[in-house]
Amino acid sequence: MTTAYQDLETRFHRHSVLQGAMAVLHWDSAVMMPLGGASARSDQLAELALVCHEILTAPELAEVLSAAEAETDRLDDWQEANLVEMRRRWLHANAVPASLVRELSEACSKCELVWRDARAENDFPAVRPYLERVVELTRQSAQAKSERLGCAPYDALLDQFDPGSRSENIEPLFDELFGFLSEFIGEVMEVQAQRPHPIVPSGRFSVSAQQRLGEDLMRRLGFDFERGRLDTSHHPFTGGIPEDLRLTTRYDEADFTSGLMAVLHETGHALYERGLPIQWRHQPVGTSRGMTVHESQSLIIEMQACRSDGFIRSLVPLLKDAFGGNGEEWQAANLIRLYRRVCPDLIRVDADEVTYPLHVIMRFQLERSLISGELTVADLPDAWREGMQQGLGVVPEDDRNGCLQDIHWFSGGFGYFPTYTLGAIAAAQLFAAAQRDNPEVSASLERADFAPLLLWLGEHVHDCASRYSPDEILIRATGRSFDVETFKTHLRDRYLN
Amino acid sequence: MTTAYQDLETRFHRHSVLQGAMAVLHWDSAVMMPLGGASARSDQLAELALVCHEILTAPELAEVLSAAEAETDRLDDWQEANLVEMRRRWLHANAVPASLVRELSEACSKCELVWRDARAENDFPAVRPYLERVVELTRQSAQAKSERLGCAPYDALLDQFDPGSRSENIEPLFDELFGFLSEFIGEVMEVQAQRPHPIVPSGRFSVSAQQRLGEDLMRRLGFDFERGRLDTSHHPFTGGIPEDLRLTTRYDEADFTSGLMAVLHETGHALYERGLPIQWRHQPVGTSRGMTVHESQSLIIEMQACRSDGFIRSLVPLLKDAFGGNGEEWQAANLIRLYRRVCPDLIRVDADEVTYPLHVIMRFQLERSLISGELTVADLPDAWREGMQQGLGVVPEDDRNGCLQDIHWFSGGFGYFPTYTLGAIAAAQLFAAAQRDNPEVSASLERADFAPLLLWLGEHVHDCASRYSPDEILIRATGRSFDVETFKTHLRDRYLN
Repeated sequence: MTTAYQDLETRFHRHSVLQGAMAVLHWDSAVMMPLGGASARSDQLAELALVCHEILTAPELAEVLSAAEAETDRLDDWQEANLVEMRRRWLHANAVPASLVRELSEACSKCELVWRDARAENDFPAVRPYLERVVELTRQSAQAKSERLGCAPYDALLDQFDPGSRSENIEPLFDELFGFLSEFIGEVMEVQAQRPHPIVPSGRFSVSAQQRLGEDLMRRLGFDFERGRLDTSHHPFTGGIPEDLRLTTRYDEADFTSGLMAVLHETGHALYERGLPIQWRHQPVGTSRGMTVHESQSLIIEMQACRSDGFIRSLVPLLKDAFGGNGEEWQAANLIRLYRRVCPDLIRVDADEVTYPLHVIMRFQLERSLISGELTVADLPDAWREGMQQGLGVVPEDDRNGCLQDIHWFSGGFGYFPTYTLGAIAAAQLFAAAQRDNPEVSASLERADFAPLLLWLGEHVHDCASRYSPDEILIRATGRSFDVETFKTHLRDRYLN
Repeated sequence: MTTAYQDLETRFHRHSVLQGAMAVLHWDSAVMMPLGGASARSDQLAELALVCHEILTAPELAEVLSAAEAETDRLDDWQEANLVEMRRRWLHANAVPASLVRELSEACSKCELVWRDARAENDFPAVRPYLERVVELTRQSAQAKSERLGCAPYDALLDQFDPGSRSENIEPLFDELFGFLSEFIGEVMEVQAQRPHPIVPSGRFSVSAQQRLGEDLMRRLGFDFERGRLDTSHHPFTGGIPEDLRLTTRYDEADFTSGLMAVLHETGHALYERGLPIQWRHQPVGTSRGMTVHESQSLIIEMQACRSDGFIRSLVPLLKDAFGGNGEEWQAANLIRLYRRVCPDLIRVDADEVTYPLHVIMRFQLERSLISGELTVADLPDAWREGMQQGLGVVPEDDRNGCLQDIHWFSGGFGYFPTYTLGAIAAAQLFAAAQRDNPEVSASLERADFAPLLLWLGEHVHDCASRYSPDEILIRATGRSFDVETFKTHLRDRYLN
């Protein structure tokens, strides 16, 4: 006889398989699809999203969930955690009436489309009414979810990307970090001014040579090309499914540095997906634990490991091999300075490790105000300039380099931004703990050998999947909850010494 | 108020969009997917097939169909034809119990997998029990469908690929063609022996040069690269959806001839899909009219147009440009002989235009006997050798080059083979009619200009979609039903004169 819990596993398995199909179609849209296929593809994805939504909102599901929750004595710890995750997903899916889900989804699609042109033409007024509609519907959705989840409306949005995340926990972290960085950046700029200016290697770095090197580094990181690919897209991302991970980067033939780091960053994401426990694949408890933990895994590879002295030294011969480079600019000391340049600037995605959190903290504050209603969309461009002045001391001359730069809000992604910086904080804590547990973690990077680090991450992060909350994962792995100290220590060590 | 008919349109629209998603995932499996993703992909496709099947077997659908059929006075001709197609699809989906659908689908997946190795290792006994299971379940499925469709079991299988097709109509055509070819091949071989032996251009023809030429020819055929791509796969095929057509070919750097013709063949398929009426996209009546008409569209391009004297003459400068060729073997007369070599041989996919139907006719006879039970799977290898001896006068030394060569039966595709030769017959009739209607159809091929032919095909075939039966389309376009005369005339003109 099938128990209520088994019935749930079957339903969520089906949901997960269909989500996997959507992930491949998403990847294809960004990497392979010709322009003319866009409208048909968005119909396909909307139809699949509807099928998935119907699985989670089947009328009988509430009863099946309750029945399973009444028989937890027959479940083991993982099954119990799975049931909790099932309930969480059910709450998110059922909190909002279907009509609002559809309206919001349509409003986001339309707004994102208008935003593409508005950004290109630096025309905020053109997209303003569309963004107003997205904000209004997002507020309604947040309100509906907040009642079911028992949290503030903005926190209900956070919870979609980072389960259990609440502003009251983020705020003190971000406040402390903001205070620290406000002083720290000045110190770093002073130290930086006294050092030789880094030289950017010049030349033509062919796409094929960059790709070969990227794939070589992915292999060193343990990426399995029998179960994934590396391709090109406008923005780097990791798509696909754990059995078939689709990474992308972009290439600039005049400058290999950023495309290469993007490969390493995305490989961090991919190794997390690939490392999730196979026996729980296709169940909610077996998925990655939200975007904060995900970002911690990409940043521990990109920022903690790959911008370390040791790794950059081991990278030098590989770079010389790949590009035939020679001369001063190819020496480790120069490349280390190059990969650690700090410069307050306008664009988040181009920001360095030190100034990046200030971009995020400003967006966190602005989006909370938009959702609470304290800030109107009409006032957003001014608020943006003010925030940039306060946080980074630079002010965009136009909205293209200001509030139009990121896709997130225009596609309905409120509550996502904080995960970038929470991920950076967690990455510092995890790397320090890994190093403490096994000194080989950083020593081996001198040989471009990531095995000790990945072994530790597998055991302490990947194997946990969604068995624990992000906070619990961090505490179990490092002995401490989220705190800014380790990140501050990391920044001081790297940028002042 | 929504009428029953409108309700049906909504359901079939949804079905079509999901089928489109499956088409992209299929393409990805063959072109992009790393090996390790195969099992997850087959889960995704099975899940999507189930969702589609559930749409067509929803319990209330029978009533909605009947209600719509009771109000046809409110429908126009296209809507009425759409309703007929809906009923046909409903019959196919509901004739077979869900358990048998699943059993058959699993048996086919397994058998196909075993077949891949069995063919490589020339080991028919290894795959025999799996094929037996597939045949047994296919017979059950055919029996169930035959009762609902009111036709013989084998005809119910034909009907899946070629709506309305019945063996009693195919048999006289194939008998006549068999009789004709038995003599004709001998005559062709004699004539051929008296002519210079064609010289195969030798050299290294880079994949990139072949691809550029293929894309150039596709553009001349009117293919829109904003709405499609050309890639590489093990077997050439046309996938995707009308808005985003994904063509593939394969390249041999020692011989460009077959890869190039495959591109032209697939472009014929693609232009048909692309030419279907936009206002009926996503409705059953708006889809291509089965595999016979589809094959007629690929063969009219590849065989009728592109192996004509005129086109091959116009191809010569393009080939020389692409490959830098020079000398006797690059002259039109040689290339014409090369593209028209006739030679009875073992492998269907490598067969020429003249001997190809004999491969098909034998398979038609064998698969009918397998479905009727007159032939057992155990006796298939012997029956194959006998059939080859009778039809082509050549006998394979092993099953790899015999009954293991084609994927069709091992993946459950019974009733598909006849459409190849019915398509060739229709292509000859359509090309002759087009030429009769407008002499520019063949004259313009001298300039590699396909516009007059495509204009005619658009009007007489593509625009019809599934509004008429294949037979009706042919009669409306050419004045005659399927008959072998025009094909025979075409072969005589091309191979004896």
